[in-house]
Amino acid sequence: MREVSIIGSTGSIGRAALDVIRLHKDRFRVLALACGHMSPIIVEQVKEFAPEFAAVDDEQGAKDLKELFPDLIVRSGKEGVASLGEMGDIVLLSVVGLCGLESALRAARAGKRLAIATKEVLVAGGELLKREIKKHNAELIPVDSEHSAIFQCLMGNPRESVRRLLITASGGPFRGKDKAFLDKVTPEEALAHPVWKMGKKISVDSATMMNKGLEVIEASRLYDIPGEKIEVLIHPQSIVHSLVEYQDGAQLAQLSLPDMRLAIQFALTYPERIVSPVPPLDLSAAGKLEFFPPDTENFPCLGLAYEALQKGGVFPAVLSGANETAVARFLKGELSFPGIARFVEEKLAGAPCIEEPTLEDILEADRFGRE
Amino acid sequence: MREVSIIGSTGSIGRAALDVIRLHKDRFRVLALACGHMSPIIVEQVKEFAPEFAAVDDEQGAKDLKELFPDLIVRSGKEGVASLGEMGDIVLLSVVGLCGLESALRAARAGKRLAIATKEVLVAGGELLKREIKKHNAELIPVDSEHSAIFQCLMGNPRESVRRLLITASGGPFRGKDKAFLDKVTPEEALAHPVWKMGKKISVDSATMMNKGLEVIEASRLYDIPGEKIEVLIHPQSIVHSLVEYQDGAQLAQLSLPDMRLAIQFALTYPERIVSPVPPLDLSAAGKLEFFPPDTENFPCLGLAYEALQKGGVFPAVLSGANETAVARFLKGELSFPGIARFVEEKLAGAPCIEEPTLEDILEADRFGRE
Repeated sequence: MREVSIIGSTGSIGRAALDVIRLHKDRFRVLALACGHMSPIIVEQVKEFAPEFAAVDDEQGAKDLKELFPDLIVRSGKEGVASLGEMGDIVLLSVVGLCGLESALRAARAGKRLAIATKEVLVAGGELLKREIKKHNAELIPVDSEHSAIFQCLMGNPRESVRRLLITASGGPFRGKDKAFLDKVTPEEALAHPVWKMGKKISVDSATMMNKGLEVIEASRLYDIPGEKIEVLIHPQSIVHSLVEYQDGAQLAQLSLPDMRLAIQFALTYPERIVSPVPPLDLSAAGKLEFFPPDTENFPCLGLAYEALQKGGVFPAVLSGANETAVARFLKGELSFPGIARFVEEKLAGAPCIEEPTLEDILEADRFGRE
Repeated sequence: MREVSIIGSTGSIGRAALDVIRLHKDRFRVLALACGHMSPIIVEQVKEFAPEFAAVDDEQGAKDLKELFPDLIVRSGKEGVASLGEMGDIVLLSVVGLCGLESALRAARAGKRLAIATKEVLVAGGELLKREIKKHNAELIPVDSEHSAIFQCLMGNPRESVRRLLITASGGPFRGKDKAFLDKVTPEEALAHPVWKMGKKISVDSATMMNKGLEVIEASRLYDIPGEKIEVLIHPQSIVHSLVEYQDGAQLAQLSLPDMRLAIQFALTYPERIVSPVPPLDLSAAGKLEFFPPDTENFPCLGLAYEALQKGGVFPAVLSGANETAVARFLKGELSFPGIARFVEEKLAGAPCIEEPTLEDILEADRFGRE
């Protein structure tokens, strides 16, 4: 029986993880749940999974939860949430934003298996986190479909023989659109992703392709592979979740129906594979699979991410912070859709160059990006 | 430096293997070459690769070769060819037909790595060969693109979590054709394979889908997986060479340009992957990938192979032997294209049931099929 701590249990990844655990109660026990605010969702989760610990970032929310469940140990605030990173055998980090970095570092230092879904942590703090993971012999397993696919395609193969990683992208709702169209895009249009149902921030990131740019940086951190060996491939059907190309010319790919529970479960069960709630893929019913090169001209965020990765240091943190602010301003109607990339580009141009950044440097760079 | 013995060096696989070795003379040395008849090809091969041993099935051919190369140790006849199975670190078996079984058994008993391309050996003698491989701690690595793909997709994964193997098939030159068309097919039409350039027998087998049926039996032998867990998927582009589906719903696939040198090289270098002569695959230039269920009604050979596999014992040997004769008669104009399946079906109906067959039983069943 492996104990699981879920940091960010009320979001889409956290809920999907509990779907998986519900199916495998003989293998996994929920030890701790953390979320940002009090809500009926966390109340239901505590009722069903009866964890020993919970943490709510919001102080009043923590008090309200404690009142409902007097036997539950409830912590609060950033420190309360971060402390859950030290609990259980597996820590699933599924919050949005760099606020997850402290939990991730705690899990690394406690030698846990860290199942990571939080992009910003890997993008902005990836180098730092990797150092701690290595130092404390912890395990880092990706939960994103793309990175899980790469992880699966690397298994059993010598790492030094990798020639390229090929990260697939659905292309988002504006694939094939031109500059004139993109100038007039509304937040509602940007939120309507053709394949995946996700939160608002990540849906806009998919529309700008920044999401894929962040994934390129994540992949580079996760697998110690430089940006020039990572390519993005548009694949509108989202069946092939990514590929690894080896020196000999062989490509290995991981395919499935688009269902995030597959990667989540694999992060929990690895190296085992057990029955999952994901329906089987019937390729002959799925129709044709298509692949296109990305349109880097009309979707400049992808290029900005490569640039930040190549510069290294705090540039990825600036990119990530600036993008969060730009997306929020776009959703409020303060920036146009192409304005997102322009905002990020300006921030990158003004950022300082710091090699081997500390946690403080990263948080400062993130703040700089957000201003 | 690993020494390689190639049994069947003048055929398409043998020549492709020497292409690979030519590129990696720092890693591989040709110790022995065997072929059926004297020809300019074997003379050139001996000149270039300077093996210590050679074998020519044909007695006169062996004498002629010895005359040209007085320092070369030349053996002759079936025994001479089979004895090369005991030489070097890696034995590549790339002859056509069950005549390769003795060489394969010798390689197994000598604890070699046996890189196997000869379908008939695995189909008819697979159970027996597997027993010897296990007993003598030898290694069996497939050279076929499809089985190599499956081998690659199994690496690093727990075998007990395999749900299905999905073997892809180009569909051959008559994909989508109906009974009326197939009744009138000529040998010339059957030999024109849309993707792979291969020998005559295997080209006709591709047209009837018997080739895929034999591969289903091979896969079952190689990976100890029953026929009901092996499916065939038509994939006209021949880019995805096969897939493995796991319990959790994940499918792993191996992709490349259709070039047999990739699987050949991997059988030599496994578990390493090194630069190969195969050009890289550009998925966005390759166009769409399509998958269809096979047409088992108009291509009954596939069903016959499943039936032989399910019955086990000597039935696969009868299937293979009968098919060889039927194809030869079709090429001579003595059988119609649909007559191939009818011939095989009749032979299977009349075959005896022998469990755990010996080498003698297998050779006898093969003869029975051929009559």
